[in-house]
Amino acid sequence: MTEATSPITFETDPSRYRHWRLAVEGDTARLTWDVQETGGLRPGYALKLNSYDLGVDIELNDAVERLRFEHPEVRAVVITSGKDRVFSAGANIHMLASSSHSFKVNFCKFTNETRLAIEDASAHSGQKYMAACNGIAAGGGYEIALACDQILLVDDGNSAVSLPEVPLLGVLPGTGGLTRVVDKRKVRRDHADIFCTLAEGVKGQRAVDWRLVDAVAPKSRFADLVKERLARLAAMTPGRPGPGVPLPPLNPEVTADRLRYSLVDVRLDRKGRTATITLSGPAGDPPPDAAAARREGAALWMLRLSREFSDALCRLRFNEEEIGLLILKTTGDPARVVAHDRAMAALSRDDWFAREVLLHLSRTLRRLDVTARSMFALVEPGSCFAGSLFELALSADRTYALDDPDRPAAVALTPLNFGALPMGHGPTRIQIRFLGDPERLAGLAGKVAAEGEARFDVPGALAAGLLTVAADAIDYEDEVRVAIEERASLSPDALTGMEASLRFPGAETADTKIFGRLSAWQNWIFQRPNAVGDHGALKCYGRPERPSFDWRRT
Amino acid sequence: MTEATSPITFETDPSRYRHWRLAVEGDTARLTWDVQETGGLRPGYALKLNSYDLGVDIELNDAVERLRFEHPEVRAVVITSGKDRVFSAGANIHMLASSSHSFKVNFCKFTNETRLAIEDASAHSGQKYMAACNGIAAGGGYEIALACDQILLVDDGNSAVSLPEVPLLGVLPGTGGLTRVVDKRKVRRDHADIFCTLAEGVKGQRAVDWRLVDAVAPKSRFADLVKERLARLAAMTPGRPGPGVPLPPLNPEVTADRLRYSLVDVRLDRKGRTATITLSGPAGDPPPDAAAARREGAALWMLRLSREFSDALCRLRFNEEEIGLLILKTTGDPARVVAHDRAMAALSRDDWFAREVLLHLSRTLRRLDVTARSMFALVEPGSCFAGSLFELALSADRTYALDDPDRPAAVALTPLNFGALPMGHGPTRIQIRFLGDPERLAGLAGKVAAEGEARFDVPGALAAGLLTVAADAIDYEDEVRVAIEERASLSPDALTGMEASLRFPGAETADTKIFGRLSAWQNWIFQRPNAVGDHGALKCYGRPERPSFDWRRT
Repeated sequence: MTEATSPITFETDPSRYRHWRLAVEGDTARLTWDVQETGGLRPGYALKLNSYDLGVDIELNDAVERLRFEHPEVRAVVITSGKDRVFSAGANIHMLASSSHSFKVNFCKFTNETRLAIEDASAHSGQKYMAACNGIAAGGGYEIALACDQILLVDDGNSAVSLPEVPLLGVLPGTGGLTRVVDKRKVRRDHADIFCTLAEGVKGQRAVDWRLVDAVAPKSRFADLVKERLARLAAMTPGRPGPGVPLPPLNPEVTADRLRYSLVDVRLDRKGRTATITLSGPAGDPPPDAAAARREGAALWMLRLSREFSDALCRLRFNEEEIGLLILKTTGDPARVVAHDRAMAALSRDDWFAREVLLHLSRTLRRLDVTARSMFALVEPGSCFAGSLFELALSADRTYALDDPDRPAAVALTPLNFGALPMGHGPTRIQIRFLGDPERLAGLAGKVAAEGEARFDVPGALAAGLLTVAADAIDYEDEVRVAIEERASLSPDALTGMEASLRFPGAETADTKIFGRLSAWQNWIFQRPNAVGDHGALKCYGRPERPSFDWRRT
Repeated sequence: MTEATSPITFETDPSRYRHWRLAVEGDTARLTWDVQETGGLRPGYALKLNSYDLGVDIELNDAVERLRFEHPEVRAVVITSGKDRVFSAGANIHMLASSSHSFKVNFCKFTNETRLAIEDASAHSGQKYMAACNGIAAGGGYEIALACDQILLVDDGNSAVSLPEVPLLGVLPGTGGLTRVVDKRKVRRDHADIFCTLAEGVKGQRAVDWRLVDAVAPKSRFADLVKERLARLAAMTPGRPGPGVPLPPLNPEVTADRLRYSLVDVRLDRKGRTATITLSGPAGDPPPDAAAARREGAALWMLRLSREFSDALCRLRFNEEEIGLLILKTTGDPARVVAHDRAMAALSRDDWFAREVLLHLSRTLRRLDVTARSMFALVEPGSCFAGSLFELALSADRTYALDDPDRPAAVALTPLNFGALPMGHGPTRIQIRFLGDPERLAGLAGKVAAEGEARFDVPGALAAGLLTVAADAIDYEDEVRVAIEERASLSPDALTGMEASLRFPGAETADTKIFGRLSAWQNWIFQRPNAVGDHGALKCYGRPERPSFDWRRT
């Protein structure tokens, strides 16, 4: 499906890192990247100067996640380079130039999610990040720094921060750099314009004056500055009691048309271009208290499910490009999901681990929201679309339900639907659902607050506005089959644009600017001869030939 | 430059309309479209079933603008079709299929601006709009209805509203339909998903239930419903005293490399791919009161300038695709601009005409913001970048100033910089300028509120953060020349994406979702073989052949 020879996998751990070193020292951690030139995920390019490919980012993503779960005591993390005079040259150009359109877009999507996870850890897990740029930070290298709370840059007359994509490559910085420069760091628009068109970037005091970095120091004082600032960052957050919760490998069973985890089962119909993803509800009762939850650790139902589902989504994005429709199913006892949701909502008020589990699920659901595939949820007998799992139905483009009085299916809302699992642009999925009917939303919120849940049979859920279509046993299968076939017949490009436009009504944030705006512009630019044609800027990079452009502007 | 044989012009008036009839009856107006099949702007397509091309939209835009200025007494406008059983089939497909990428994108941009102008008239000029869909309203036809405050649909068993672009053409509705369905009308996301993939659309009571229209009535009662609702709409707004202000033609002088209006002068350097636009400040004093302003009418400096500049931008977008950089200059006395600004700010508190002039300038500046060309403003001796004209500098990607003590240039802020001329996403340009320095913003706002203006020489303006670069007489010309040459050498696609990402930090609205998100996705889709390839959906439409898709999703 992709040009990669074998499917891409997303699991790793620090003992297997090829490009990063993770060192925890008391309440701070040091993440050092020293990318192996010959360690690329695919052959054909060398990862020089700490340039990176997807494999490097998979390790970074793993480290950020492990720090949150396995090292709760860490309050500040510094990212620095193991190479002399270079922090990072950014995403590897030769890797990008030799990748398909879909791979490029999904590479950017995954790296964006990693950057947002760093910001999420800072905002919600009390783990602050600092980029200690001990050398040039170019393109994606600077974009990693932009995801950190603080950026320090060595002032050696040579080291600069830069976003050289526009002037050198004729594409955009693909990991939120433009948005973060003006929206997060509030660099003045005209300074941002100069900076983003200046191949060599900006260094020294001017980088501070333009708000591109927070401080600079000569090489002789750089280590001291880093140490002092890191201690100050750590002092800003309260810290969380250990011990941590280890994250063991997921080890799914992979066969030709199936991807099977303990709680997530993915069946592929490549001819029909669909994947049916079945998520299992909990098999037992929720942990009675925080200590019991900690003992369950990564085996805790909600965490295990979230990790497996996230992994499955990443594999589908990269390894199954032609799968256009995800059919989301659940199986289990809705009452048990309600019980787990209520327990996690209660525990998360005081316990960092419970909170961390909800944050993980929240990220996984956001990963689902920005996945460029159509999604139908199917509510059927034996399903458990309750609370946290009902978020799947709210995330889906449509929900179909079988209304069979002999085999009734139940749907439920829990406290988790009303705040703990927000979308990337801020509101909850149920707020978005009832944007046109805030009174109904208030009624449901009130009921759940008072009673801890709101249960519905299928006709009740339809009447409450929680389902799209309910059909009886005679019509259901045909109705769903026709809807799936119709969906699978439509232009995949138009669907991607349509879904991205319809899924995020209401407010906007940097999150949706990146996935809604930047990814759309980049989609276009990645397709244009001015970037990827034989004489395009991306193709000419590193060759003596200068790019030749079609000058027409839109 | 385009495939059009002659340059496109944007001026018209009701006596020359080929496709619309404008009838004013007391405090309501009726806009009836009856598109002439053979009246297309270019040969090669027939405008059947009230389908439209740019020419039809130029007339609509003209009518909406004239209603605001020439018919202030109108409080409610109904848009209806002069054809039986069809309101509009939307943008003409054959026109789109035979247009260049740039033309398609600019066509959508112009029609979007017209729809936003309708909403602007409703929000700020007390002219409410109603779409009386007396037949099917498909695609762009329904999108015009979505721009209105109310949508009525005849219930005749046949007439439906629809957005069939995704299922029939493999592209997106290009005029904000997706955004307005979920954001403005707050249609539930799953209903919106079904609606936007259903070629035949939705009719009758279901259209009401899904919030797609406000009311339906059978044919026999439709005219009564329209009359009654229109009267109710008119009663919602206070009405404005006449008489109106006529808008005479602009009649620029057009030569090979120049476009010359009374206050706006455009000089083209096609080889350098730049246009130098010089805007003239006022030649005399501002009108002393509202009556005097009304007597000046369309000759009032600010209105004349705004109309001419808007017209020039439209011509540049369509007729000069390869012009990549707009060099914005002003000439005149800054003190006179300040005087006019202060007069207009004062008059607009009580006078509809003064308010209407500011709203016009506001729309023109927003047209500038979303123009996909780079913009540098040049502050030079003899220039008058003050207040309303300083918005040009704030809209520009960079501002260069000549700092020559012998020939000093002045820059000034006036009350108009602090609220009357907001960007499309809500904030003022000066708010965006000082997003990272709100204290400085508050200081400037306080000074202008107290003293009516804040003047700066070039070093002072640079220190205040109002300029990008100031250079002395020895360096200025070289500095500017090099910057222009560098800008003109960069990939036009990457610049378009970069500028759209950098120009709108801060909050988001439907306005920026449409120009930032929708236009980017559409840019991409318009480029993809799935839409425009020989077997793409847009190319196959109306042929027996079914489109064939590359199924890879991103």
